[in-house]
Amino acid sequence: MTSKQAAANTPSPISIAAKGYAVDSESTPFKLFNFERRMPAADDVVIRIHYCGICHSDIHQVYNEWHSSKYPMVPGHEITGVVEQVGSSVKGFRVGDHAGVGCMVDSCRKCATCKKDIEQVCGDLCLTYNSTELDKVTPTYGGYSNLITVKEHFVCKIPKNLPLDAAAPLLCAGITTYSPLRRYKVDKHTQLGIVGLGGLGHIGVKLGAAMGAHVTVISTSESKRDDAMKLGAKVFIVSKDDEQMKTVANSLDLIIDTVSAPHDVGPLLNLLKFEGVYCVVGAPTKPLEVGAFTLLMKRPTITGSGIGGMKETQEMLDFCGKHNITCDIEKIDATPETIKAAYDRTVKADVKYRFVLDILNAFK
Amino acid sequence: MTSKQAAANTPSPISIAAKGYAVDSESTPFKLFNFERRMPAADDVVIRIHYCGICHSDIHQVYNEWHSSKYPMVPGHEITGVVEQVGSSVKGFRVGDHAGVGCMVDSCRKCATCKKDIEQVCGDLCLTYNSTELDKVTPTYGGYSNLITVKEHFVCKIPKNLPLDAAAPLLCAGITTYSPLRRYKVDKHTQLGIVGLGGLGHIGVKLGAAMGAHVTVISTSESKRDDAMKLGAKVFIVSKDDEQMKTVANSLDLIIDTVSAPHDVGPLLNLLKFEGVYCVVGAPTKPLEVGAFTLLMKRPTITGSGIGGMKETQEMLDFCGKHNITCDIEKIDATPETIKAAYDRTVKADVKYRFVLDILNAFK
Repeated sequence: MTSKQAAANTPSPISIAAKGYAVDSESTPFKLFNFERRMPAADDVVIRIHYCGICHSDIHQVYNEWHSSKYPMVPGHEITGVVEQVGSSVKGFRVGDHAGVGCMVDSCRKCATCKKDIEQVCGDLCLTYNSTELDKVTPTYGGYSNLITVKEHFVCKIPKNLPLDAAAPLLCAGITTYSPLRRYKVDKHTQLGIVGLGGLGHIGVKLGAAMGAHVTVISTSESKRDDAMKLGAKVFIVSKDDEQMKTVANSLDLIIDTVSAPHDVGPLLNLLKFEGVYCVVGAPTKPLEVGAFTLLMKRPTITGSGIGGMKETQEMLDFCGKHNITCDIEKIDATPETIKAAYDRTVKADVKYRFVLDILNAFK
Repeated sequence: MTSKQAAANTPSPISIAAKGYAVDSESTPFKLFNFERRMPAADDVVIRIHYCGICHSDIHQVYNEWHSSKYPMVPGHEITGVVEQVGSSVKGFRVGDHAGVGCMVDSCRKCATCKKDIEQVCGDLCLTYNSTELDKVTPTYGGYSNLITVKEHFVCKIPKNLPLDAAAPLLCAGITTYSPLRRYKVDKHTQLGIVGLGGLGHIGVKLGAAMGAHVTVISTSESKRDDAMKLGAKVFIVSKDDEQMKTVANSLDLIIDTVSAPHDVGPLLNLLKFEGVYCVVGAPTKPLEVGAFTLLMKRPTITGSGIGGMKETQEMLDFCGKHNITCDIEKIDATPETIKAAYDRTVKADVKYRFVLDILNAFK
């Protein structure tokens, strides 16, 4: 084979120039990062990113707190924007459509869980950043950037009535709480507890209330009471107040625990009815500690849930469109300094309830 | 009211003289204990105890390891014997019947769980020992004794084909493993794991195999391999051997964890299929530690189970009668010294697989 023949067999080398914000290590600041996105293959969609939410897991990854960080890293997996280009076989999107990308950009599509639309646990899952494409070599870069090329299967439609900025966190925080609410068939008969009123918790309250559940918010801080009730909760209790906790003991069908900080789940498990469900959606680095007697006497289902499959994510977005649900956000300019400041405030839980970066204006 | 009238209104004070072995504190040896059982009320059955199993929880209670012991204590809740007397309204038992009593002797019979035949979680539950009757005053004394008076509802029929000695541990170890096997609908399609091959584990293997499951035993000790296979397991793996553990990774539908000693459940959870069930039936004093990522990615049901309701206990005994299942036991004389020696060996897991006290001969 001549070099000319080889060149003819090689896919077009032309790529799309992209820019974003990256960190080079766990201890260096964000900086402008020039890189390339692939030209769209037949089944690809290219999205001009308008907004990207700041998820607490971005912070864990940037600072290598999960000990699996790869650099340079462009974080961001709560992405909304507008379709700029589509591959030849793309059926579901047209240029100008509102589109979203969440935590994953590819999977094997062949395994048992992929076939069941639970792509998020595929062994070959390609995360949106700090991961690689299916070739296990090409790094993936996230949504703190102006453009992204993604397989159509992993792109969601954002209902036209939802603003792109406040819809962005639905792609992670939204689906993370929606999925277990559906898995455990929440409806008007459900006594639902939401532990923690942050990025995940506040949208969990909205979704649970929209499904008709009687929502109880359990928080460490009395200061969250008014917000909880405005978001749709019927009851608010402070977890450190034993008397308040007693009023809800043995009454909840399902608790969604959204807290990422280490915390004692023992008193929270007491709030469950016999055979109630306790679902962890936060990711504390310290293991949960569960007493054997609670397991023996309460017979709870203790489980967890991470994001959701693509079909369910679209279902969640359609549900939010129907009920006009978005996240409560603080929209901020996207610069290395503003991102750092937002991270510092997120770590202190000082945000109502999600920072969203104005990506479009940052890279104009 | 005169004292004569009062006496006329008081139930007959006549009681039944009973004897047993009791401890007076967590640090004193067993001694002969003379006490009284109530005369049978209309709905009572009096049983001449023939055999009583030694459950690991007897040891925890005698030594006050759960910090709730009351003395004097007559332990024992794996009781079999022969009906000696019945109250006037008793329908299900006749003098001479083979009968069994497990961990509980009364409950409110009115609450939601009692009505669902899950008496074991009733808030007013009366345990067979180290507890009180419904009056919250009268202490209950267990099966290391010659006679017991029990409400008919809490007495089980022992199938005639089962020997009373080897059937005794079914009343606790048997129902403790049977209940979750039924709750999670074990059948010939089930990949079942049993962690620990002791009193609970060995009967769990027999029951699971009789239900048609493909049973894998996970043990810390290679020395249990032959027994596991003889009891009905198809696969045996040593939990400390990473290579053996890998061969079973992500393959089990249900794991019953029978281990009472503190142990790391992380590697055991890895053996579950996606959304598999991990059910704790042992009672380690140290809490279980469960990593959040396992919960998020595996979406397991982590739960527990303690004994079972009366209806289910009878169902278990009938199942064992049909399949001719009893426990593998070491039958021993019942003296303060032999009980102490059996406790010491049980703590060292040096018993195949349950000690059963020969009560009838001890108190002849």
